[in-house]
Amino acid sequence: MTAPVFTLSDEAETRQRPLWLQVEDAIVRAISAGRLKPGEQLPGEHQLAEELGIHRHTVRRAIESLGGRGLLEVRRGRGTFVAARPIAYRVGGHSRFTGNIEAAGLVPSARVLRSGIVKATKDVADNLDLKPGDKVTALELLRMGDGIPILIARHYMPADRFPDFAERFEKIQSITKTFASYDVIGYRRRATRLAARQPTPQEAVDLRQPRSAPVLVWGSVNADPQGRLINYDSSVFAAARVSIVIEEED
Amino acid sequence: MTAPVFTLSDEAETRQRPLWLQVEDAIVRAISAGRLKPGEQLPGEHQLAEELGIHRHTVRRAIESLGGRGLLEVRRGRGTFVAARPIAYRVGGHSRFTGNIEAAGLVPSARVLRSGIVKATKDVADNLDLKPGDKVTALELLRMGDGIPILIARHYMPADRFPDFAERFEKIQSITKTFASYDVIGYRRRATRLAARQPTPQEAVDLRQPRSAPVLVWGSVNADPQGRLINYDSSVFAAARVSIVIEEED
Repeated sequence: MTAPVFTLSDEAETRQRPLWLQVEDAIVRAISAGRLKPGEQLPGEHQLAEELGIHRHTVRRAIESLGGRGLLEVRRGRGTFVAARPIAYRVGGHSRFTGNIEAAGLVPSARVLRSGIVKATKDVADNLDLKPGDKVTALELLRMGDGIPILIARHYMPADRFPDFAERFEKIQSITKTFASYDVIGYRRRATRLAARQPTPQEAVDLRQPRSAPVLVWGSVNADPQGRLINYDSSVFAAARVSIVIEEED
Repeated sequence: MTAPVFTLSDEAETRQRPLWLQVEDAIVRAISAGRLKPGEQLPGEHQLAEELGIHRHTVRRAIESLGGRGLLEVRRGRGTFVAARPIAYRVGGHSRFTGNIEAAGLVPSARVLRSGIVKATKDVADNLDLKPGDKVTALELLRMGDGIPILIARHYMPADRFPDFAERFEKIQSITKTFASYDVIGYRRRATRLAARQPTPQEAVDLRQPRSAPVLVWGSVNADPQGRLINYDSSVFAAARVSIVIEEED
């Protein structure tokens, strides 16, 4: 017999909490104490329910909640796993996604989800200093590390200057090098805005994550060395897989 | 007769989506088009269901989902409102919460949720360069703007140097000035880490927000002018009410 991985607490204060929260606590304790390690698979719902002597639905509710908190990752048809430690994304004027994914020891890849010339929404126009309805080149990418979706990047460029950006990117496979093909060598990120929300249904599908798990929302604007705005990057990160690190200058 | 604020789309492609997603779309369209403004109250669930000719539960599911996405704010017992524009929190080596709340035009206030001398968890110890189990002074604050909870700040200080920090803060009501009372004049934030997750049940209660709406998770370390670590700040922001702005240095 080995010691049980999960146990409900016997403390009187705890026993008054709803049962699904006690199950949450038991799983969190198992992770904190190292009895469950990053990447490790949890027993099935049936087995957990039996071990703890409670109903399956109570176990499911706790697992869904911990999925939303980023502690567990539910992979459809494969089971429930302790979330891997999130990738640290460093933000600086020159940081790029590919470099960040490689620094985490993962193999970066990208897939074009959508592209085309579209009318700027108010959000896009405000960020690129255009008028709503002006033409912009839109390029929506799914960026992955070791084949696991990390973020959806939505790039918008003024269409008069970069009309065939998406076609060039398809061949070149790098945002920096595609800008270089227009003789834009070196560019700088201006302010970055970060927020969090639930994903839209489509984002949850593209990122292969549950709808209850939040996304980190990223908005930044890039300017060329002459200071002209060339790119608005509006991205959503699978929050369970990434944390953003901002280094302060000295 | 005025034009209806909400209408379900007639496009064939749209009609194949689940009904609650169509309701979400209708509300998002009403907000985007300005028929519903920030701070404005939505009609009740009953009325909306009747207007659209659908079941109340379908309306409720759409509203809960948009609450999680930060577009609507459900205030218990008061109704559902279009979310106000989130406060922009500027991050820099010297930025402080009070200044950020004041810059948004809100009156800042704080309430001590918990305080005391505790043993450092692994997370706290790692960030303050201590050993797990070493004593730290813990101070957990609810910070508000115009009385609405914006964030829960959890401050940890080495207990040997700052044993009565919480008691002093209760009188002084400012983190910066409490440090000054120990002759720590001026300190700098080192790296800041940002992530997102669902709130714990207690965080949702303290922040007066639904459990489905995510929190932004903030972690930063402050050092005194001699470079000694004096404070680990582990905070959670109500994500619907805040976005974090990182200005790049030139």
